[in-house]
Amino acid sequence: MIHHYAAEPGKVQDALSAVLQHGALSGTGKIAILPIDHGFEHGPVASFGGNIDAMDPRYHFRFALETGVSAIAAPYGFLADGLETFKGKIPFILKINSNNLLVPGGELNQALTASVDDAVRLGCVGVGLTIYPGSPATRCMVERAATIIAQARSQGLFTVLWCYPRGPELKGKERAVDILAYVTHMAALLGAHIIKVKLPNNGFVMDKSAGIDLDVSTLEKQINLIVRAAFNGRRIVVFSGNNLDTPDAIKDGVRAIIAGGGHGSIIGRNVFQRPWKEAVAFMQDVIALYKNG
Amino acid sequence: MIHHYAAEPGKVQDALSAVLQHGALSGTGKIAILPIDHGFEHGPVASFGGNIDAMDPRYHFRFALETGVSAIAAPYGFLADGLETFKGKIPFILKINSNNLLVPGGELNQALTASVDDAVRLGCVGVGLTIYPGSPATRCMVERAATIIAQARSQGLFTVLWCYPRGPELKGKERAVDILAYVTHMAALLGAHIIKVKLPNNGFVMDKSAGIDLDVSTLEKQINLIVRAAFNGRRIVVFSGNNLDTPDAIKDGVRAIIAGGGHGSIIGRNVFQRPWKEAVAFMQDVIALYKNG
Amino acid sequence: MIHHYAAEPGKVQDALSAVLQHGALSGTGKIAILPIDHGFEHGPVASFGGNIDAMDPRYHFRFALETGVSAIAAPYGFLADGLETFKGKIPFILKINSNNLLVPGGELNQALTASVDDAVRLGCVGVGLTIYPGSPATRCMVERAATIIAQARSQGLFTVLWCYPRGPELKGKERAVDILAYVTHMAALLGAHIIKVKLPNNGFVMDKSAGIDLDVSTLEKQINLIVRAAFNGRRIVVFSGNNLDTPDAIKDGVRAIIAGGGHGSIIGRNVFQRPWKEAVAFMQDVIALYKNG
Amino acid sequence: MIHHYAAEPGKVQDALSAVLQHGALSGTGKIAILPIDHGFEHGPVASFGGNIDAMDPRYHFRFALETGVSAIAAPYGFLADGLETFKGKIPFILKINSNNLLVPGGELNQALTASVDDAVRLGCVGVGLTIYPGSPATRCMVERAATIIAQARSQGLFTVLWCYPRGPELKGKERAVDILAYVTHMAALLGAHIIKVKLPNNGFVMDKSAGIDLDVSTLEKQINLIVRAAFNGRRIVVFSGNNLDTPDAIKDGVRAIIAGGGHGSIIGRNVFQRPWKEAVAFMQDVIALYKNG
Amino acid sequence: MIHHYAAEPGKVQDALSAVLQHGALSGTGKIAILPIDHGFEHGPVASFGGNIDAMDPRYHFRFALETGVSAIAAPYGFLADGLETFKGKIPFILKINSNNLLVPGGELNQALTASVDDAVRLGCVGVGLTIYPGSPATRCMVERAATIIAQARSQGLFTVLWCYPRGPELKGKERAVDILAYVTHMAALLGAHIIKVKLPNNGFVMDKSAGIDLDVSTLEKQINLIVRAAFNGRRIVVFSGNNLDTPDAIKDGVRAIIAGGGHGSIIGRNVFQRPWKEAVAFMQDVIALYKNG
Repeated sequence: MIHHYAAEPGKVQDALSAVLQHGALSGTGKIAILPIDHGFEHGPVASFGGNIDAMDPRYHFRFALETGVSAIAAPYGFLADGLETFKGKIPFILKINSNNLLVPGGELNQALTASVDDAVRLGCVGVGLTIYPGSPATRCMVERAATIIAQARSQGLFTVLWCYPRGPELKGKERAVDILAYVTHMAALLGAHIIKVKLPNNGFVMDKSAGIDLDVSTLEKQINLIVRAAFNGRRIVVFSGNNLDTPDAIKDGVRAIIAGGGHGSIIGRNVFQRPWKEAVAFMQDVIALYKNG
Repeated sequence: MIHHYAAEPGKVQDALSAVLQHGALSGTGKIAILPIDHGFEHGPVASFGGNIDAMDPRYHFRFALETGVSAIAAPYGFLADGLETFKGKIPFILKINSNNLLVPGGELNQALTASVDDAVRLGCVGVGLTIYPGSPATRCMVERAATIIAQARSQGLFTVLWCYPRGPELKGKERAVDILAYVTHMAALLGAHIIKVKLPNNGFVMDKSAGIDLDVSTLEKQINLIVRAAFNGRRIVVFSGNNLDTPDAIKDGVRAIIAGGGHGSIIGRNVFQRPWKEAVAFMQDVIALYKNG
Repeated sequence: MIHHYAAEPGKVQDALSAVLQHGALSGTGKIAILPIDHGFEHGPVASFGGNIDAMDPRYHFRFALETGVSAIAAPYGFLADGLETFKGKIPFILKINSNNLLVPGGELNQALTASVDDAVRLGCVGVGLTIYPGSPATRCMVERAATIIAQARSQGLFTVLWCYPRGPELKGKERAVDILAYVTHMAALLGAHIIKVKLPNNGFVMDKSAGIDLDVSTLEKQINLIVRAAFNGRRIVVFSGNNLDTPDAIKDGVRAIIAGGGHGSIIGRNVFQRPWKEAVAFMQDVIALYKNG
Repeated sequence: MIHHYAAEPGKVQDALSAVLQHGALSGTGKIAILPIDHGFEHGPVASFGGNIDAMDPRYHFRFALETGVSAIAAPYGFLADGLETFKGKIPFILKINSNNLLVPGGELNQALTASVDDAVRLGCVGVGLTIYPGSPATRCMVERAATIIAQARSQGLFTVLWCYPRGPELKGKERAVDILAYVTHMAALLGAHIIKVKLPNNGFVMDKSAGIDLDVSTLEKQINLIVRAAFNGRRIVVFSGNNLDTPDAIKDGVRAIIAGGGHGSIIGRNVFQRPWKEAVAFMQDVIALYKNG
Repeated sequence: MIHHYAAEPGKVQDALSAVLQHGALSGTGKIAILPIDHGFEHGPVASFGGNIDAMDPRYHFRFALETGVSAIAAPYGFLADGLETFKGKIPFILKINSNNLLVPGGELNQALTASVDDAVRLGCVGVGLTIYPGSPATRCMVERAATIIAQARSQGLFTVLWCYPRGPELKGKERAVDILAYVTHMAALLGAHIIKVKLPNNGFVMDKSAGIDLDVSTLEKQINLIVRAAFNGRRIVVFSGNNLDTPDAIKDGVRAIIAGGGHGSIIGRNVFQRPWKEAVAFMQDVIALYKNG
């Protein structure tokens, strides 16, 4: 996979390799990233109140090491808290923007909570940020993403772009395959190195897709179209496990990702909201699927 | 406590230690900060009109020395006025933003009234600023906080973040425990070193908290949840004495802070709006509670 | 043509010459540019869904080499993907802004998706950007264009300005000859080196044009007026093939461009949405017309 | 007075001293500043049409020298016009923002018309700027003031802050004593060196002032409260002579300023709109009051 | 005249002198500037469609040389086009902002189309820009003017400020003498070196002018008041010939400018929209009037 990034600076390629070569999935070309920004996005009570030990950042670092995920992605304070103990034991990705539930009026945007310089200081391999194509702030978010990607690149870091279609004209269509393929393609054109989207749950919904004769009747085929939208699979595309509420359902999703040519998963709530042992076993199952898939 | 800040530059840790090791609470792990920005926030007549001597910044510096508080926090002009006489006698924290009552329409934001460079020039150990999560300006305030925290850090200063939930959708819920835990957690993720919130006065109010099974039936338990939201107590969280109108009520609040695992108080109006002797005695009582608590 | 750009830095003149001297049209004073930003503007399904191989940037680079076009213009990620294999084989133009269909409310603006520095790093000869004179963002877009043109110039790159009149007061008049002459003239005054407009489809529509006695009764004459608006033909003006749905119609348009004094074409969808062989033959026909025209 | 500014850089203290030691009031601790920005604020016809000689900046410089005022304050073009002839003969203060009557809708803000660098180049001792606490632009104006004060300080210049409460919620209350004390206090906290307010004409009007037991029944007592709001008189506070239409009324105002502990006057229209001789005599009377007061 | 600019850097004085000493009016203290920005402001068809040769920038340079005007003022692309052939033969002034007719809703602002750096690179003696006092953007335009004037000054260039009152509250009053005197005075205070206004067509219209006893009953007297508003004639004020449709009417205007103490004309459309010979003769007549006036 790394040779598809030949235009990037050597340090960025090394940083990507560090993730591809870390943990249980090392060398498989697949990745599993543990993201912990839910405390900012949904609040600590909603996120960790049911598993109070998870209030402590070190809980998640330990989980990441125990299960052998490829990297951990979180906001500044979280990574800083784990830095002394866990630096060098797992690749760090600094999630540099987040939304929060307290914002009135449902404003669709994300606040920058840290900088690329912070990522460098914390010894991260990459930065992560979220865009909401479809929101009234689309243009600003795209421009900010372009700027951050360029800053990160110049510092030797890769960028993970969380692409969540969202907005007044996309209600109910956020996970349609043509919409997800669209945002994936935008991310690839912006130069994102790892593209994160939700799993599709719908066929074509855009007027512009009318008349396009492509079979997107199964989840696997939908995933494959999204992957092809990433320069014919030449960019790493990973998926979340959202809305798949049982472990078995999530594992079915993983099988579809593998069959469709996707490169991995970003799973957070589905692990830290379960008891430790159950969560470890579940994550190891997911990793085993990718390893053997 | 200071080892929880191991990821921070040595100068920032030293600055935090300077506060933890100053005054009557030196070495206890608890702090009491004297904040004097009420003249900007509420006007000098409302703040000091009943105790006209308090119009003079030196009044408050003398009070701080007399009572042995850990630090004094105030806007630029105030600290500059006391600089010649009081520099080196007590840690200075520059409060770099403030709101004022003259702003029309109740705009929920704060104006930057000074800079990190000013703090350095005045020999401060830290800067303080306020955010209003829940206000229409939430995103801007969070981004500004992130920027100031990073600037201060790079200059060897810590940051105190005053976190006041406020906004059209939070009316009457500003001090609910899940809301306060939320803003405390946001502050920790932003990298704030000392987090200041008001005392909680309510249980869960957010829809997202529904179904979370945590006992928050007492002030102590509410405080404890807020402290846990600060990385399981790994960040310094201090509380105001607001809305506790009698000295005894405030002291009950302090007892709950201690029992709940909080790290101290920020008390202003409750001292400078009382006669000097009464205020000194009261502050000494509060400090004694923390010392012996 | 290049001597009309005598005021520009030598490196910018060299960059322009590189395009004028490349490919099948080398030395003819005409150019044909292959633009591939449709995936961002209209989505990958609508753009490439009917010809799925075109999801891969390399498809288009191969097409460009096969047909001998003068240059390829595309967003950052696309050019980066082709860099290793195709650098030095064809001039690269970095398209640094794009709109997208997901933006709600039909906002008429373009997001910067890359920078002049990116263009330099990718070894480009020029940058391209789009303005919408007539949109509520007209002033901002004009100012941004002026800034980008100056930045590019200082780095030795030329600028292609896509000038698309669009806005609430221009409905149905977007391709009127006086409107297109206007935006062409604006681009020339801004210092754009290559000006791209759509083919005109209408006579005068502006009140200000009343009483102007010019014959614009044919496509050729309309094109000629647009070219004259570019400092009497002293700037390179190229046209798109839009709304000319059959190959023959497009070729008629090319003949009118030649007769009217235009300098070439920018054709994208009309080639990559046809099968490879058909598209190659068609593009070669267009080039032959310019060569022999 | 100058020792109250001990925290300021030596050059700033020197600049303040230059004003305190200049002219007829040298060494008295009182100052009289001649401001000429009325041509921008109200137009040249309204300001100077009745005394056409006053269209010439040199008229005002000559007046300043003739009467021995402490400094002259004016916009860039005015000071530049007098620079060759009057430099070194009187301290220059560059007024760097102004409003104008042509702005539609009564927008309450001020345009920056020059910079601190301009002040340095013109050999000024200080800069002046106006804020409108209470206007919708309050936060922006406060932030700009903080920035300008810091810039000026770093260049060795002091700042005069014109504090004019104004806004939709302050109609008819602009000169109430608690409002004026408030803005004076804000200016002191912002680090302004000389604070300019209008003379008060009213008692307490803010809800927050209810219950405050202070005697503000006379102009002298109102002035004294405003002066105390400036750190108990530790900052220079000067007043305008506005709305006191006869020379005798203005002189009564000056007597109240002296009795209330104020530090001087800023008088413009009341001199240049009278005939030269009458104006000179009047200004000399005012100065004599301060000298002997 | 040049000694009135004694506060300006030597290079700026030299640049002004270059215009005052160039062409047919050299040494007379009067100037005639040829401005060609109409193609941007009104479109090339409306501006040059009736004289198609005028589409070519070289047409206007030749006209300028033929008639001996003092300088030529135009946007970037225009000056760049003439640079190789005409550099050193006539002073260049870079017009760095322009409005255009395509902007919807009649927005009253101007887009920056070039920079002071561009002016330096083109060997210009000055820059020109337009402000619309009275527009909702007044404050921004004034601030931008102040910034550009300072940038130009620091690079040794003078600034011509086109001052066009315009806005919702000025309808029908744009050319009233008190309004024009106002904007002229603002320009002088901003430090503009050459001030351009339209010829007045009305007496006093501002409420503030009521009671001002000045005779403005003739065009000459109106012009004289405007000139006095420019620091009693100490700044160069030039007028346009607008709305004077016949050559004789324009020449009457020039006679009034001379009699009123104005310093010259800026005439564009009135020359390039006439046939070459007629235009040359007309411009020579205007110049002769200034020479002999």
